Amino acid sequence: MNYRFVINQIGLLLLVLAGVMVGVALWAMAVWLAVDAWPAGSLGFLGSAAIGIIIGGTMYISTRSHSKDIFGRREAMLLVAFSWFLGAALAACPYLIWAHFGATAPDHHPFQNYIDCYFEAMSGLTTTGATVLTDIEAMPRTLLLWRSLTQWLGGLGIVVLFVAVLPSLGVGARKLFSFEMTGPTQGGVRPRIQETAKTLWIIYTGLTILAIVLLRLCGMAWFDAFCHGFSTLAIGGFSPHNASLGGYNNTAVNLVIMVFMILAGVNFGVYYQLFNRAGRNALRDTETRVYLGMLTIAATLVIATLLIAGQPLSATDGEQLEPTVANVVEHGLFNTVSLATTTGYATADFNEWPFFARAVLITAMLIGGSAGSTAGGLKIVRVWIMFKIIYAELERAFHPHVIRPTRLGRVAIDTDMKLAVLAYIIGILLLCAGGAVVVMMLEINNPQADFTTAATASIATVFNIGPGFAAVGPIAHFGWMSTPTKAFLSLMMVLGRLEVFAILVLFMPRFWKTS
Amino acid sequence: MNYRFVINQIGLLLLVLAGVMVGVALWAMAVWLAVDAWPAGSLGFLGSAAIGIIIGGTMYISTRSHSKDIFGRREAMLLVAFSWFLGAALAACPYLIWAHFGATAPDHHPFQNYIDCYFEAMSGLTTTGATVLTDIEAMPRTLLLWRSLTQWLGGLGIVVLFVAVLPSLGVGARKLFSFEMTGPTQGGVRPRIQETAKTLWIIYTGLTILAIVLLRLCGMAWFDAFCHGFSTLAIGGFSPHNASLGGYNNTAVNLVIMVFMILAGVNFGVYYQLFNRAGRNALRDTETRVYLGMLTIAATLVIATLLIAGQPLSATDGEQLEPTVANVVEHGLFNTVSLATTTGYATADFNEWPFFARAVLITAMLIGGSAGSTAGGLKIVRVWIMFKIIYAELERAFHPHVIRPTRLGRVAIDTDMKLAVLAYIIGILLLCAGGAVVVMMLEINNPQADFTTAATASIATVFNIGPGFAAVGPIAHFGWMSTPTKAFLSLMMVLGRLEVFAILVLFMPRFWKTS
Repeated sequence: MNYRFVINQIGLLLLVLAGVMVGVALWAMAVWLAVDAWPAGSLGFLGSAAIGIIIGGTMYISTRSHSKDIFGRREAMLLVAFSWFLGAALAACPYLIWAHFGATAPDHHPFQNYIDCYFEAMSGLTTTGATVLTDIEAMPRTLLLWRSLTQWLGGLGIVVLFVAVLPSLGVGARKLFSFEMTGPTQGGVRPRIQETAKTLWIIYTGLTILAIVLLRLCGMAWFDAFCHGFSTLAIGGFSPHNASLGGYNNTAVNLVIMVFMILAGVNFGVYYQLFNRAGRNALRDTETRVYLGMLTIAATLVIATLLIAGQPLSATDGEQLEPTVANVVEHGLFNTVSLATTTGYATADFNEWPFFARAVLITAMLIGGSAGSTAGGLKIVRVWIMFKIIYAELERAFHPHVIRPTRLGRVAIDTDMKLAVLAYIIGILLLCAGGAVVVMMLEINNPQADFTTAATASIATVFNIGPGFAAVGPIAHFGWMSTPTKAFLSLMMVLGRLEVFAILVLFMPRFWKTS
Repeated sequence: MNYRFVINQIGLLLLVLAGVMVGVALWAMAVWLAVDAWPAGSLGFLGSAAIGIIIGGTMYISTRSHSKDIFGRREAMLLVAFSWFLGAALAACPYLIWAHFGATAPDHHPFQNYIDCYFEAMSGLTTTGATVLTDIEAMPRTLLLWRSLTQWLGGLGIVVLFVAVLPSLGVGARKLFSFEMTGPTQGGVRPRIQETAKTLWIIYTGLTILAIVLLRLCGMAWFDAFCHGFSTLAIGGFSPHNASLGGYNNTAVNLVIMVFMILAGVNFGVYYQLFNRAGRNALRDTETRVYLGMLTIAATLVIATLLIAGQPLSATDGEQLEPTVANVVEHGLFNTVSLATTTGYATADFNEWPFFARAVLITAMLIGGSAGSTAGGLKIVRVWIMFKIIYAELERAFHPHVIRPTRLGRVAIDTDMKLAVLAYIIGILLLCAGGAVVVMMLEINNPQADFTTAATASIATVFNIGPGFAAVGPIAHFGWMSTPTKAFLSLMMVLGRLEVFAILVLFMPRFWKTS
């Protein structure tokens, strides 16, 4: 194992994070000069940046003399896993420093506990969107911006990782997304990966800027537009407002956010192709079609259920909305897209919706967005392949000798990939079930933690959704949970974000054996 | 499709069922002669037998001139599916006739509704053990015997079907159980199947007689011993008493029942081998070892949880038992074995047990017994293969070129079988989830039907367990559900019993196409 190179790269990552923190501090200074009011929390960024520069710098410099030649699959997995753990550890520091030393910090703020900060940072970087905060608006703007920024950075990391770097990793369906992208089909063509990553970075940033500008045009303040732009493209779900997007009561804003949530749930490989003028292939992409089809079906079912039920909708800002067709369509559509893409924004308390609407939402959440996007969930392509396999198995039961290749678009799916897809689905469902039991056990003496809460807390973190149901519903938060539970759920978020295998292998003795 | 032969065979099955009904009526006459009291319900058996003889006889005679040559996989599946549907339809008749014409029948008995009778008959034949009855002891003995007999017949049917007939069907892991049995490896060697079926019939009957005699020796009345003997070997769970086995307060009885539940959860192929003096192979059987290991682990966890919790145990007869070590071990062990084998007998209300104990019980229920036994659940062998595949996938993530064959004992498992196992597991879990949603929707206006009830009702029927949790718990029943729900759950029981594929294929247009 080439530890030197792994340490070197993690050091680099910490330095980059520290750089972003310095950026936030500089922005705070600019605000200071403009309005003559010292922005709260900004000293925490300088302190955290210092920590990052010292630790990251030491790691980076002490391992300068590394070999780049030995960088196999195991090194990549180790690097990815520890990037996330240590990145979150550093990203948590501004919260902690503000809670302990900030003049505006209340006496008993959750962020005085480092695990709460870590949970929030991990929730950001993994683009989950779960929070421990009860009063988001009471936080200084620097920290609110940082929350959204962590999501944006995490989202970018995931896109680059899964589209550009990992397709060659062979874990599950990701192989598929190398389809016509000439770059990252094999690990051998390393220079191409950097090129691809750069293109993806441009696409991601471009879409984010477009979202921010459109939100501003719809009447959102610049600060809010930035925060939401960052969180939306990352499919994160952090909002600087307690009522999430329900507080704006602005249909145009909801529409823009919705469009960008949908765009962010598409495999970024498709945009890469469009960017490289391979438009025809991109538009034929099976996963994108299925994704849009499923969104349409889910939204239709939810809207129909809400119309039939005809009960008033509780907006997240506390207002009771009449179940008019306009209201039901707007809020049914918005919250379905938000949950189906695993973003986690809310404009209405869907926890109160009729059972069937909730069942559709949970199903959509579990399926999630496209692979190679910033969305969570099982991923459309896996679910699609799964149904194809089950149908083929049914047919095999009475026609055992008919062999019909399973196809995704024009690509035939080989048996190894089929096995990987099914094993992944079962594995992650077992993880969700196990997680629910662990949460129940950790909160055994807490009457708030019923099984629905524990189960949806587990699902919402593993699938990087954000809010669950019951006591972790859209208008609730994770702050009331015990410290061990929050630490455990932070682990679940990374497991989900890195698609389990990259983390679980670290617990296998064979992984560490030199071979 | 050779419909004539299928109809002919179903006719034969109805005639056999009618024959058993005549047997029950004759036993009733014998009781009449002995004690000079006309046994209630026995006229219903003669009436039902008449129906069976007329319909079955017509089907049998009118298709005498059938060809036996064309009997492929599709014919077998059609035969199996309709045997169950029509068998239950006939087996339900004695209940209906008694409820409408019996002198002892109360005014508003659930059995006056044919769907309730059908549910009870299907629950019997599929060895599920769920009941619509509130007061079991108020039923005439003829019907109580019939309930247990339907389970015994269904259990025998399943064993013969899965060990002797279906291994050649190739649906999932069943292929495995042809291991060293020379008979049923290929469909071509048809005479062997009849021989195998006969041997299995002898083994099953022998074990049942042994159980009955031992129960009698432990002090159970002959009638009760017969009923429990039938239900235990079938892993059914019907008891002639409201308190199930909790009413006897007899440790020896509990011990005997427990041993036979464990024996009935073993693949009958193992007994077949022992019977044919292939003892060494039988004792090396991987599935049996894993099965016994899992039972031990589950029981240990449940007992430990109960000891730590230290709360009194509510026996099913209403008594509160002190949580002494003796009581906890006896009832923890008995109920764990009963649920893990999917029998469904109860001596204590496990619905009240601490969360962790219930989580272990649900997990054990889902895993179930061995394939080729009368037990329900996913089946040990599938779960075992599943974990092996997931482990192999984890290793493949960082060592993609290491190919290590997955083995079950000394048998290597090929990729097709792996896919079939995983597809089956996902398929049946989807069925359970879909079933829970359907039950919720059908009972949407019924406050009794919370999600735990709906979900465990779905699981308890698909996996042929019997009782679930909450409003369908061990001291509750399914009688309060609406008629559509009971009809739906009857379908779920067959789907589970025939391992889904045999029924689901009937809904595929391609199945019916002549090819």
